[in-house]
Amino acid sequence: MATRGDELRERLVRVEGRLREIAAEADAPLDRLAGETIAAGGKRLRPLLVLLAAGHGDDGGCAVADDAGLLRAAVAVELIHSATLVHDDVLDAAPLRRGVPTVWSVAGRQGATAAGDYLFARAFGELVANGRIDEVQVLSAASSALAEGELRQREDAYRTDVPIDRYLWRCELKTARLFEAACRLGALESGGPAEALGLFGRRIGLAFQLLDDVLDVCGPVERTGKPRGTDLLDGTVTLPFILARERDRSLLDVRPVTAAEAEEICDRIAATGALEAARERALAMVAQAKDGLPHADAALELVADNVVARYA
Amino acid sequence: MATRGDELRERLVRVEGRLREIAAEADAPLDRLAGETIAAGGKRLRPLLVLLAAGHGDDGGCAVADDAGLLRAAVAVELIHSATLVHDDVLDAAPLRRGVPTVWSVAGRQGATAAGDYLFARAFGELVANGRIDEVQVLSAASSALAEGELRQREDAYRTDVPIDRYLWRCELKTARLFEAACRLGALESGGPAEALGLFGRRIGLAFQLLDDVLDVCGPVERTGKPRGTDLLDGTVTLPFILARERDRSLLDVRPVTAAEAEEICDRIAATGALEAARERALAMVAQAKDGLPHADAALELVADNVVARYA
Repeated sequence: MATRGDELRERLVRVEGRLREIAAEADAPLDRLAGETIAAGGKRLRPLLVLLAAGHGDDGGCAVADDAGLLRAAVAVELIHSATLVHDDVLDAAPLRRGVPTVWSVAGRQGATAAGDYLFARAFGELVANGRIDEVQVLSAASSALAEGELRQREDAYRTDVPIDRYLWRCELKTARLFEAACRLGALESGGPAEALGLFGRRIGLAFQLLDDVLDVCGPVERTGKPRGTDLLDGTVTLPFILARERDRSLLDVRPVTAAEAEEICDRIAATGALEAARERALAMVAQAKDGLPHADAALELVADNVVARYA
Repeated sequence: MATRGDELRERLVRVEGRLREIAAEADAPLDRLAGETIAAGGKRLRPLLVLLAAGHGDDGGCAVADDAGLLRAAVAVELIHSATLVHDDVLDAAPLRRGVPTVWSVAGRQGATAAGDYLFARAFGELVANGRIDEVQVLSAASSALAEGELRQREDAYRTDVPIDRYLWRCELKTARLFEAACRLGALESGGPAEALGLFGRRIGLAFQLLDDVLDVCGPVERTGKPRGTDLLDGTVTLPFILARERDRSLLDVRPVTAAEAEEICDRIAATGALEAARERALAMVAQAKDGLPHADAALELVADNVVARYA
């Protein structure tokens, strides 16, 4: 008899296969670009959340008898995520992502903008096949939030005095909402508790972003694949800085322009103890996420812990 | 009693109002950016097609009793169109569109990319409220096509020997499919003939693009708002050039880099008679579109003729 773990692995393989199929459906050169983007896709955390949320409450086997719709939801969420990565790389003019050349560096601005738009449109095309308007609504709300978050980040650039609530709201929009959507979609497919699972997703999404922002300050470079202080150089003011400026007011006046200056500010932030405080805030968020689950769920709790483990 | 014209005008006003509402729903600065994009929106040709397609077969009054869904479809199509304009302006680094500063010039690359993404996501959010998965499918298919068309344009850049079929297919993808979607959505809302009206939309969309490409070569600048030969400078090889190169093979070797060189090539294209040939092809397409309508429809025929009238 297949265990839940076997089933999950098998489904993730099928998600991966479908992502590649979708890339191949495009005409050249889009198939190549989309394929590269998808191949460089990383952890597949969001599809995993879709699949696990659908299994919530199901201890032994499979809560979803026909899983075609579930897989489409998992694929759709990952396509939206891929689309935002491609557009982010255009904005950052980033040559590498996870050690692989970005679509931007291979195809230029026009190629990458269009490739992102294509992945975005295909996400809706995939989900539509489920025939469920409630699911499309979840995906479009998350997509709007992502774009708003991106714009807010730009609006707040170089604002060393940005209020913490404004920062947290930006993280909600640009990260937590898609995690929420992933969990909601899984719940909708299995008839599970969509509100409660959505809240779980939102909380671990927020924790994920907070820890990502901590990693930008503390590195190490070998793990993050980018120099420390990249956010600072981009003018992106994040939680470690916000907490540090309360303890070292001279930080309010910084505006690093070289990588060395950014690293030096990272050291000043670390010296205030702000990294530990930010990490604790994220850990508390993860604990809250787990506590809020309708009932114990080893798999979802493991994902929540893994969000934190990235840091350790 | 309200005439069909009164009703149409009133609906277009409501479409306009809803577009502005959607812009205002975003947080600042997105509301401002989205508002500017929408305000600079131009002719509202696509929403008009949605509304008119819904009235096809209806000689006196209104084929759609409750028109809320119809208006949402019209708004959704225009939002997709606006999203592509914003992204195009980023790619072209265009300072002005219709004499108004572009979102790109006001908000920079990041702002404009995010604003485009937002408008795109909101299009789906708007249409979803109709609760019709068939409509969402139409919109996502058109959106994928748009992105594919954009990428093909890039792929074919500076290919002076691009085959005509490849050029025509690109026009289908980047322009005709959204016209088709507009007509299909109107038909779906009114229970009209979606296939036939979709084909009508596709044909006039293709004619629209062909004439747009003619205008780029012949101007005049006062009407198009941009210098002659802008496409040539971007490396975009279009029908006038393709037809001209059959008559003047030396054109195969051109690669203009200055505006003056581009204008000179425009003159060489015009000298071959290619502009008239291209225009005739577009006119034939419009005639075919009108002939293919299930039955006479003065309003849709007028729109088809107006596509051509832009040129006259």
